[in-house]
Order: sequence, then C-alpha cells, then structure tokens
Amino acid sequence: MSITLAELGEAELLDRLARFAPPGQLNDDTALLPPDSRALLVNTDVMVEGVHFSDATTAPADVGWRAVVANLSDLAASGSEQVEGITVGLVAPGTTSWWWVEQVYEGISEALEHFGGTLLGGDCSTGKQRFLSISAFGRLGPLRLHRAQARPGDLLMSSGPHGLSRLGLALLQNTPLPTALSVPPTLKDQAIRCHQRPRPRFDALQTLVACKPEQLPWRAGGTDSSDGLLAAVHGLCRSSGCGAVLRRDALPRPDAWPCDSAWDRWCLSGGEDFELVLSLPSEWAESWRHHQPGSCCFGAITADTGRIIWNDDGALLQPSEFSHYR
Amino acid sequence: MSITLAELGEAELLDRLARFAPPGQLNDDTALLPPDSRALLVNTDVMVEGVHFSDATTAPADVGWRAVVANLSDLAASGSEQVEGITVGLVAPGTTSWWWVEQVYEGISEALEHFGGTLLGGDCSTGKQRFLSISAFGRLGPLRLHRAQARPGDLLMSSGPHGLSRLGLALLQNTPLPTALSVPPTLKDQAIRCHQRPRPRFDALQTLVACKPEQLPWRAGGTDSSDGLLAAVHGLCRSSGCGAVLRRDALPRPDAWPCDSAWDRWCLSGGEDFELVLSLPSEWAESWRHHQPGSCCFGAITADTGRIIWNDDGALLQPSEFSHYR
Repeated sequence: MSITLAELGEAELLDRLARFAPPGQLNDDTALLPPDSRALLVNTDVMVEGVHFSDATTAPADVGWRAVVANLSDLAASGSEQVEGITVGLVAPGTTSWWWVEQVYEGISEALEHFGGTLLGGDCSTGKQRFLSISAFGRLGPLRLHRAQARPGDLLMSSGPHGLSRLGLALLQNTPLPTALSVPPTLKDQAIRCHQRPRPRFDALQTLVACKPEQLPWRAGGTDSSDGLLAAVHGLCRSSGCGAVLRRDALPRPDAWPCDSAWDRWCLSGGEDFELVLSLPSEWAESWRHHQPGSCCFGAITADTGRIIWNDDGALLQPSEFSHYR
Repeated sequence: MSITLAELGEAELLDRLARFAPPGQLNDDTALLPPDSRALLVNTDVMVEGVHFSDATTAPADVGWRAVVANLSDLAASGSEQVEGITVGLVAPGTTSWWWVEQVYEGISEALEHFGGTLLGGDCSTGKQRFLSISAFGRLGPLRLHRAQARPGDLLMSSGPHGLSRLGLALLQNTPLPTALSVPPTLKDQAIRCHQRPRPRFDALQTLVACKPEQLPWRAGGTDSSDGLLAAVHGLCRSSGCGAVLRRDALPRPDAWPCDSAWDRWCLSGGEDFELVLSLPSEWAESWRHHQPGSCCFGAITADTGRIIWNDDGALLQPSEFSHYR
C-alpha cells in the first residue's frame, strides 16, 4: 500500500509535485508569463470525482490526461496556436494514496508533452472528495474562433466523429448500449481509446488557419463538443443569436456506427467528444473539408433564432439540458 | 427558502452568474487577455468548505471576498501593479441555495470593485462539498518580487501587524484565546474585521516601488503572510537558500496585543494575515519604513541556510508545519 497524503504531509507533497514542473517554477507565490505580442486565451475547468470520473472507469493517469485535454480543447476551439501551460488546484482527502496523485500528475505531464505547455503553478488542499481544477493558458493565432461569431448562411462543420466517448464509457461501465445492434470490435477499441485518451484538435485548427480563402476575413464561429455535438450547436446558436438546420443523412457518425435513431442520440448528445464544431462561410468550409481528413459538413446556420431543426422533416431538436445538479 | 441549484438547472445558473461579468464575457469557451508589454502574473488558490471557511464563521459574501483577496494578495506579493481579473471554478451540491451562490458572487464582485479586475470566466459543477478555485491575473510592474530573491544582509520587513485574523476567527468561533489576558473591545472589532474582510496590500507595494533608492537594482525578496508570518519567513529562506534572525522585541504585533509568549505564537503563526513580508537591502528597507505607515523591521536574512532563530537567545524557531491533510 502506497503512503497516504496525510502521512506525507503538505510540505513533502508540494516538494514531490514540484518535480512535475520546470526547476524552481513552484518556488514562488505566482507564475510569470513573459510579455508577448499575441493575446492570451484563458480557460478554467473543474473535474469532480463521481461526476466527471471514477476509479471504476478511469485510471488516475487518464484522469490527469483528460483534465488537461478538456482545458486544451477549449483553447483549440478559441484559436490558440500555442499552449503556455496550466495551473492545477488539487483537492483530495488525506487518505488518498500518493500513488494516485503521482499517477494523475504523470497523466498531466504526458498530455503537456504531447500538446505543449508546462505546469506553471497551483494549490492543494484536503477535502471530502477528489477534485481537480485546471486553468490553461494559450497564445492566440491569427483566427479568434468564438461561439458568438456564427452567421446565417454559414455551414456547420465538424472535425471528426461523435458518440465514441459515450460508447467507450458504456463499455467500460458495462452499462446498456442504445440498442442490441452489434458493435464491431474495432469500433469498441476505438471508443474506449477515445474515452480514456481524448485529444484536443489543434491539428484541425492549424489546417483551418492555413486553408482560409484569401478574400475572406478572419471570422468564424467555433466551439468544442465537450458537452456533445448538439450542445455545441446550441452554444453557437445561443451566443450568436442564430438557429441551425442539421442534415440527418450527414451526422458525423463514426465508421461502422449502428444505423438507428437511438444510436444517433449518442452521436448528438453523448458528450466528451472534444472535436471542433465550426460555423464557416461555405467557401472556407469547402476548403477545410478538402484539406482536413475526417472533417465533414452536417448542417447550416440560419436566422431562425434559437431553433435547431432537422433538414428532412423540419422537426425541432431539443438539446436535452445536461445538468450536473440533477 | 431560496431556490436550490438543482431546481435552477445548469443553464439558468450560468445565465445568472453571467450577470456578475461584463456583458458577453461568459459567451465563449475561453477568456481573452489582450497583448500587453508587461508580463502576466498568474495565481491559483483553492478554498474548501470545512477547511478554509464554514457557515458558522463566514457569511457567503465574505467567502467570496476572502477567496478573491487570497489570490490578489499573492499577486501583490509578486509585484503586480494592475489586476486583470479572475476565473472561478465553483463546486456545490444541488441542494445549495441560489441565495448562497449569489452572495458569494456579490462578495467576489465587491472585492474586484475595490481592487480592480473583472470576472473573466469559469466553470461550475455539482459535488459533495462546497468548493471554490480561483485563478487571478495581474500585470507586473517594475519590481518582480520573488520568494527566491532574499539575500543575506537584507532586513526582514512587514507591511503590517500579524495575528489579528487568527484572533478574529477565535472570537467568531468562540474558541479559547491563547491566555485569559484581557482583550480591549477595539482590538476585538479590528480582529473580526481583519478575518472577514482582509485586504491585499497593493498600497504597500506601490509605496515600495516609489521609494526605491535610485542606485539600488530592482531586487527584493517577497511573499505574503497568508499562511502566517513565520511560514512567510520560512518560505523566503527556503526558496532563497538563506536563514533568518527574528527580533523578539520587534515582532509586528497589533496595537494593544497582550504581552505573552502564547499570544506571540498567534502573531507568528496565526495565519491569513495577507501582509507583505519582504527581504530588502537596508537602505530600501529604511526608505520604505519611512514612507509606509504601519510597516516595520522585525529581523534580518542570514547565510545560515534553513535556520530561523531568535535574536536574543539564539533559540531555533521551528515553523510548525501547517498541513491541511492532518
């Protein structure tokens, strides 16, 4: 059995955590980001045990990885071209093993090595429940993607398929699938990988910046699908004062995804997909679809404020409100 | 009885919280800080119910105020001349009343109005325990105060008295005082005010910057006494590889503080004082003491790495390790 945080004591815990940051980085009350000619994007996300992760489905290294990716995905969906780093607020009961904390920070470090940035600072405390609060910092590139920048006539684009993370969670929890339709083993593997090790789509953002038709201004609506595809569309419409029409035939379903309306609900609202969901002028959309493997057009933005409908029968899509509080 | 967060739902909660931020500010996945020629200071602090605050001693507006001040105090102790703003991660059970949350954000807003900055963004989730994680952002002025910048021969300076917040807590909790020595009513009032509404010492930093003797470089050691005076000295010594000698006759005791070694322990280790604790070349120290009301010299930095001693008998001062985990 590994030593607990209570046995370790706070000073020793802080010393051990400092090894995950550059030398001397955690030696002061604050972290310093040097002046830069680019604007800074800032994001804060919380992850609570029993709400966002559990020992049953998430190894501690995956908890750390996912917490970082949830934040970096927001930076990507806002136009960040470079990650500066993160701060971490860690709350855990004194009975928590150092092994668990170390593994979480291993996962954090792995994600930072993959996607850039360093551990800049943080704080820790005891509490009744395990809990991570991460703030992430990135430098803005030429395109400020923004939820409020969708315009009627834009096409709705996705950087990749949706529903995999939800399927992965169900497989890990051994809970029922939408229907008994058979799922190929390769899809199962892909789904579990997607759930445990999601990726922020900086690559798709880079393509988007590179492929902009010259005559168009740097204006695009964007968000990520951390709360699901439909919630992403809803967020774009809400912040931009628009509506949307979704193409039932062209939902960004994963390959080999069962053809069924119940499965489509997971594609629409499964959550934690961390893809870019964009609202682009058609020319830019076409250019991006051409250059970005896996991207697709699944609808369009309309002037019909607040209404999201299907293209074939005009039926209203009600974004089932996801509420942590219920 | 006020409506609960579970009854409110997440969308309505976010709408209501958005009213505490500038219009449109919470409309996107991230916040943007424009380019600036000055470096950015970043700090993250967590506050957990039952550890850092409780309904018994802290009104929710004071919880919000104190959470902001704990962060801003770190910015002041690092040389921040302007607060940009904060992000807030809020975790609370669904049974929490909207009234409580609203009051916390009222306190947050009050503190930001007093000391500068705006609510830039955040996240919220349910959880078993109430919990706040705040990240604060400030622009660096000409002096980068740093824990690792103390040097042997420096004088140890404080921007104000220590022990008041601890006394205030004891009075609010109705727990025993160090001894039965009588406490004047004015000291009691001051102590409770200090505990409920601490202030970051941006004013004392401003004086420090303005009064630097011209021939000296911009080098000073500094931290805040959020964990107590002795912990602040210990932090300076640890990060700077130095030791310290403290003047027993010149501890920064509050006016009318009982003369007693037990009371002195609260002055040394009561905690949550949020004063600046500085390590300054003697000429600068003298200039600051002259210009900054309430500041004083209570010791000096030595080359005796890791040893903090009393000036009169040379006895070792052991910073009682404050550990949340025990």
